[in-house]
Amino acid sequence: MSGNTFGTLFCVTNFGESHGPAIGCVIDGCPPGMPLSEADIQPDLDRRRPGTSKFVTQRNEPDQVQILSGVYQGKTTGTPICLLIHNTDQRSKDYGDIVQTFRPGHADYTYWHKYGIRDPRGGGRSSARLTAPTVAAGAVAKKWLKEKYGTTFRGCMTAIGQIDIPFESWDHVPNNPFFAPVADVSALEAYMAELRKRGDSCGARLRVTAQNVPVGLGQPLYDKLDADIAYAMMGLNAVKGVEIGAGFASVADTGSTHGDALTPQGFVGNKAGGVLGGISTGQDIEVTLAIKPTSSILVPRPSIDTQGQPTEVITKGRHDPCVGIRATPIAEALLALVLMDHALRHRAQCGDVAVAPGPIAASAPCNG
Amino acid sequence: MSGNTFGTLFCVTNFGESHGPAIGCVIDGCPPGMPLSEADIQPDLDRRRPGTSKFVTQRNEPDQVQILSGVYQGKTTGTPICLLIHNTDQRSKDYGDIVQTFRPGHADYTYWHKYGIRDPRGGGRSSARLTAPTVAAGAVAKKWLKEKYGTTFRGCMTAIGQIDIPFESWDHVPNNPFFAPVADVSALEAYMAELRKRGDSCGARLRVTAQNVPVGLGQPLYDKLDADIAYAMMGLNAVKGVEIGAGFASVADTGSTHGDALTPQGFVGNKAGGVLGGISTGQDIEVTLAIKPTSSILVPRPSIDTQGQPTEVITKGRHDPCVGIRATPIAEALLALVLMDHALRHRAQCGDVAVAPGPIAASAPCNG
Amino acid sequence: MSGNTFGTLFCVTNFGESHGPAIGCVIDGCPPGMPLSEADIQPDLDRRRPGTSKFVTQRNEPDQVQILSGVYQGKTTGTPICLLIHNTDQRSKDYGDIVQTFRPGHADYTYWHKYGIRDPRGGGRSSARLTAPTVAAGAVAKKWLKEKYGTTFRGCMTAIGQIDIPFESWDHVPNNPFFAPVADVSALEAYMAELRKRGDSCGARLRVTAQNVPVGLGQPLYDKLDADIAYAMMGLNAVKGVEIGAGFASVADTGSTHGDALTPQGFVGNKAGGVLGGISTGQDIEVTLAIKPTSSILVPRPSIDTQGQPTEVITKGRHDPCVGIRATPIAEALLALVLMDHALRHRAQCGDVAVAPGPIAASAPCNG
Amino acid sequence: MSGNTFGTLFCVTNFGESHGPAIGCVIDGCPPGMPLSEADIQPDLDRRRPGTSKFVTQRNEPDQVQILSGVYQGKTTGTPICLLIHNTDQRSKDYGDIVQTFRPGHADYTYWHKYGIRDPRGGGRSSARLTAPTVAAGAVAKKWLKEKYGTTFRGCMTAIGQIDIPFESWDHVPNNPFFAPVADVSALEAYMAELRKRGDSCGARLRVTAQNVPVGLGQPLYDKLDADIAYAMMGLNAVKGVEIGAGFASVADTGSTHGDALTPQGFVGNKAGGVLGGISTGQDIEVTLAIKPTSSILVPRPSIDTQGQPTEVITKGRHDPCVGIRATPIAEALLALVLMDHALRHRAQCGDVAVAPGPIAASAPCNG
Repeated sequence: MSGNTFGTLFCVTNFGESHGPAIGCVIDGCPPGMPLSEADIQPDLDRRRPGTSKFVTQRNEPDQVQILSGVYQGKTTGTPICLLIHNTDQRSKDYGDIVQTFRPGHADYTYWHKYGIRDPRGGGRSSARLTAPTVAAGAVAKKWLKEKYGTTFRGCMTAIGQIDIPFESWDHVPNNPFFAPVADVSALEAYMAELRKRGDSCGARLRVTAQNVPVGLGQPLYDKLDADIAYAMMGLNAVKGVEIGAGFASVADTGSTHGDALTPQGFVGNKAGGVLGGISTGQDIEVTLAIKPTSSILVPRPSIDTQGQPTEVITKGRHDPCVGIRATPIAEALLALVLMDHALRHRAQCGDVAVAPGPIAASAPCNG
Repeated sequence: MSGNTFGTLFCVTNFGESHGPAIGCVIDGCPPGMPLSEADIQPDLDRRRPGTSKFVTQRNEPDQVQILSGVYQGKTTGTPICLLIHNTDQRSKDYGDIVQTFRPGHADYTYWHKYGIRDPRGGGRSSARLTAPTVAAGAVAKKWLKEKYGTTFRGCMTAIGQIDIPFESWDHVPNNPFFAPVADVSALEAYMAELRKRGDSCGARLRVTAQNVPVGLGQPLYDKLDADIAYAMMGLNAVKGVEIGAGFASVADTGSTHGDALTPQGFVGNKAGGVLGGISTGQDIEVTLAIKPTSSILVPRPSIDTQGQPTEVITKGRHDPCVGIRATPIAEALLALVLMDHALRHRAQCGDVAVAPGPIAASAPCNG
Repeated sequence: MSGNTFGTLFCVTNFGESHGPAIGCVIDGCPPGMPLSEADIQPDLDRRRPGTSKFVTQRNEPDQVQILSGVYQGKTTGTPICLLIHNTDQRSKDYGDIVQTFRPGHADYTYWHKYGIRDPRGGGRSSARLTAPTVAAGAVAKKWLKEKYGTTFRGCMTAIGQIDIPFESWDHVPNNPFFAPVADVSALEAYMAELRKRGDSCGARLRVTAQNVPVGLGQPLYDKLDADIAYAMMGLNAVKGVEIGAGFASVADTGSTHGDALTPQGFVGNKAGGVLGGISTGQDIEVTLAIKPTSSILVPRPSIDTQGQPTEVITKGRHDPCVGIRATPIAEALLALVLMDHALRHRAQCGDVAVAPGPIAASAPCNG
Repeated sequence: MSGNTFGTLFCVTNFGESHGPAIGCVIDGCPPGMPLSEADIQPDLDRRRPGTSKFVTQRNEPDQVQILSGVYQGKTTGTPICLLIHNTDQRSKDYGDIVQTFRPGHADYTYWHKYGIRDPRGGGRSSARLTAPTVAAGAVAKKWLKEKYGTTFRGCMTAIGQIDIPFESWDHVPNNPFFAPVADVSALEAYMAELRKRGDSCGARLRVTAQNVPVGLGQPLYDKLDADIAYAMMGLNAVKGVEIGAGFASVADTGSTHGDALTPQGFVGNKAGGVLGGISTGQDIEVTLAIKPTSSILVPRPSIDTQGQPTEVITKGRHDPCVGIRATPIAEALLALVLMDHALRHRAQCGDVAVAPGPIAASAPCNG
């Protein structure tokens, strides 16, 4: 209830701080009997891991995940799965200068006011490092959804700073450090090199999708599927905007062209982004995110200290010049967690039916 | 858990269908001792009410709210407040044609698949009519927040279809049926008249804000204030995009210009939209919404029936040509519900302290 | 979260006061497609109804339930079911004397301190009248469980005041006003008549059971089936003790005689009361309750007023001389609500499998 | 939602198995700013620890707790507190014999049916070893309640098997391995020695109390304070009965003698056990528990195997001959967790007022 648990039936409780001994999460509600080992989780953590290119933070964390509970003889038991990741490369002294100062754009000021106490080491609890356990939990959700429904997830960067990135192919995404769907990322590299030289940072726009989503997931009136996706994505560090399907372009659209027509062969178009009335249609879920520039920069900024006195801040330490770069696997994980939770919620109320996505036809109704 | 309750401590459970005998909600968790009567709630319902101009649905519902419980001698008792609104102007026969057909852009297809049963009368549970109880509950939250912290709410339309609406003054908003912050709405009227002639509909963009928000509301890691705002807004019928503060414009921004600088006199700028690290800063909360065009239109659209056969749909009945027009008071109510819930959550964990917004200075820490 | 919602997936939100215009509840999470009408609910309300014999309160409430939402064409739609019961026979003036006084054994003192406000009319929210919506919701749960698993519920009185009531047959229970499983209730009648003459009241002990309970319901570690049953029963007005199976007699037992042996034909004995490790065994669930004497009596008692001054209290009004008499259908309803909630929770995590109770044999494992 | 989280605002999520690498919990919702170290938690764990006398299991676990997160510079930060306890003395081979067999009185049969998978090593997740994290979390709650309200907790054994233990003094409790409030425990020792010789086990009855409880804790209608206490206690392994205050003795009582009279100097008597209408009165909370005999015994019992075939079971391994002996600190911890959760819930709705217990007088009402 203090906001560190994600989900209502597939519940992920996240703990830890950037520079504490360890971070992790407890997953409660995972169905029993699913094969699971660290090897199912590590690849997604590796995709998010810091220190893997010169365009991300140079903090070197192996992010090795350990399953502490909930798995017996290689299968989930239905009991809580604790996933632990040790912190190994903290340099808390980098933060000595900012203990009494609030960095613009950071959570320093609000944490200090809310809790009356603040852990300045790497942002403490507000660090984006805490997305690692989310990614780990998302890998468990991804596995179950894939085995049960064939659901898959992918994401890519569609803009970095002022550069729009055209969509060429999903195949390019794993081949460059930007998760960009283009073959040639030299322009992106040059842009980032120039930013880094200035000690500045930039924003990014991401696209995240799910394929083979069963029809019927989502709990109106309030816990609509798209509402929960928006919650998940806006809660990701630095996100300032979320769109489902056509998003803000819907404003200038008309009803006669916006609503995706239905045919026996399927929907014509996907302006809905895979959700109608808060419930999945079986089409791809399409989500777009806006991520703000990293707040930790070397450019000096005016600020105040805890006494309310004016000062100037430069943020040293090792930071991502664009936090959006490593956000793609995190956004995928969040989307997986939302779908997983709604899959279990649907099953609770409507039974273990799943209308497979595909050509639209008469389908067996839910059996209550 | 089936998605009809909003909030975790100030819990609003919504019930009813568009053409059933009544709609309403139960508010659980309202602090005791607050003066409350129907007169506190009715004005916001009247702002949302259908039938008030030629630009909205002509369904004529008085939307008179009745307090059934939770108030004794004019004060809240701390027990559940049931708010009831009778439906009076149903014309269910308007929907005879679409019982076996799925309207494009509507929840028909997904409800039928999810529940195996569907109430076609005015969209049943998926109708935007169900936002009325949300508005009623929001009025209760608004009152408490205003009395406790001086917090106020307002919203306006910033675009309708392809017309961007410049911001002139909040004073204009109540003086036109569009909630537009401009003195002259003749262009909007002409645009809507033309749309109506074609039997078509359009989208809208809204801005919603809160003033005098206490510092410290929001529960990271997941239940961040902005995450819960995004959840609330994306869950509003027809919303396809949500922005906090600078929103999607953050993407092309740099760290050196994005983070709002702090001075003893306050923040310089509000690109954050009033939230840092998921916690309120004391600045105005700034939210922007994209609303898609109404799906119920007279223009014929290709679709299928429940047997999977192709057909064509025209949606008769009485519909809003732009659902965005009446959405402003609803979005205000949702923002109020989010802040109310987080005010109680903050109080639970950190005690009854509230850092008043204003010039930034050293402040007393939370007392645990 | 303020304690007026029962259940986590089959959620019943209760509202109203003893002397307000109406009481009721909203059920969220009911599976869709189940036939439901007021006729399914009214019989259990009639069993609990006041004014039906001279041994219960003479307040005459028809307790007619109205389904306001969630049912379309005679079937549940999967959306919230609002059940409304109008109050018709309030006599609030009976309570004029006690507005400033705390009745011993009553909730007056604690409500006043907790909320700073108190509705003295018939106990307001603390009245046992608020069990009527619980009974109504329980009837919905009973119906689903019976159709799905054949599960049934029954209860009886096993002691009233100082009289132990032997178990003769379930057949006698509906034939007397005490829910006593005996043919001859003349001793009970005489006892009650004598109590009434003295203006005093007495306690009672009840037994409640469920038959044909599927194996596997219950969510350890904390939300064990027996834990949730104890929560439900202890929350019933005036209950001071709860036992599962052998209950307090277990203390003097030994391991060699206590644990119910397993044979291919089934368990030998049911000291467990149908629950092992917090999960149902498929045996009957067996629960015993202790109910304290009614606190509203004509015998004068020492007390204090809201100024802390000593006074004496006599409680007029129309009260049950033994609240335990009408508690049997309420306890059945609570047991049904617990099982219903756990049936949905089990289905969410483990899928729509249900191991039918019966002779013990190898069974298909859960399919995750 | 799968039952491994205790509490709604002070949330304790428990993980681990008896013979896995570690057990532990995550506490979410602890108020910030409270001094906390392992030294605050270890003493209660030591009171519950196995291997400390010949009357409990000889498994030798140091149960050293480690704080992994949520504490910075010796104070709670308001973020999740992860408490980890490594398992060190597993002997899983002891359980080779029972992998395919269901032990009478154990959770084996129900876990296997529910999850389709079962961890036989020491009972896996159903082991009473999982109460250690509960005790650790309870120590955190105890500390906050003591600092805030002066609330304290204590418990003792009131019967072991067929021996009733008279109450002499709380002072004796820490001086014997039984938590017995008597100076001379030789009769208990003799009884246990005889049981052990026979390879049998026995039950126990415990009393647990809280002192200096603020007035006003508890959330009717359903989440009454006594309902949540009953839930907590009945969820403790092997508990079969729970009483509040007078408990089952209330049945034979009359209203004229049962309700505790109020005087300006305080309540006369405490048959209520500190709760009226589900809300704390400021009197001591009084709870009584019935604990069944340990199911793991050397006496052979008839049972079946996973194929449904008859067999006979003897449970080797190292087990407590009376699980009730070590249950006192666990029950105290559970009572502390319930009060802590309700203290935060009360604060959320009614503000940071606490009516100190003591002589009854006019008190300031809640300020909403």
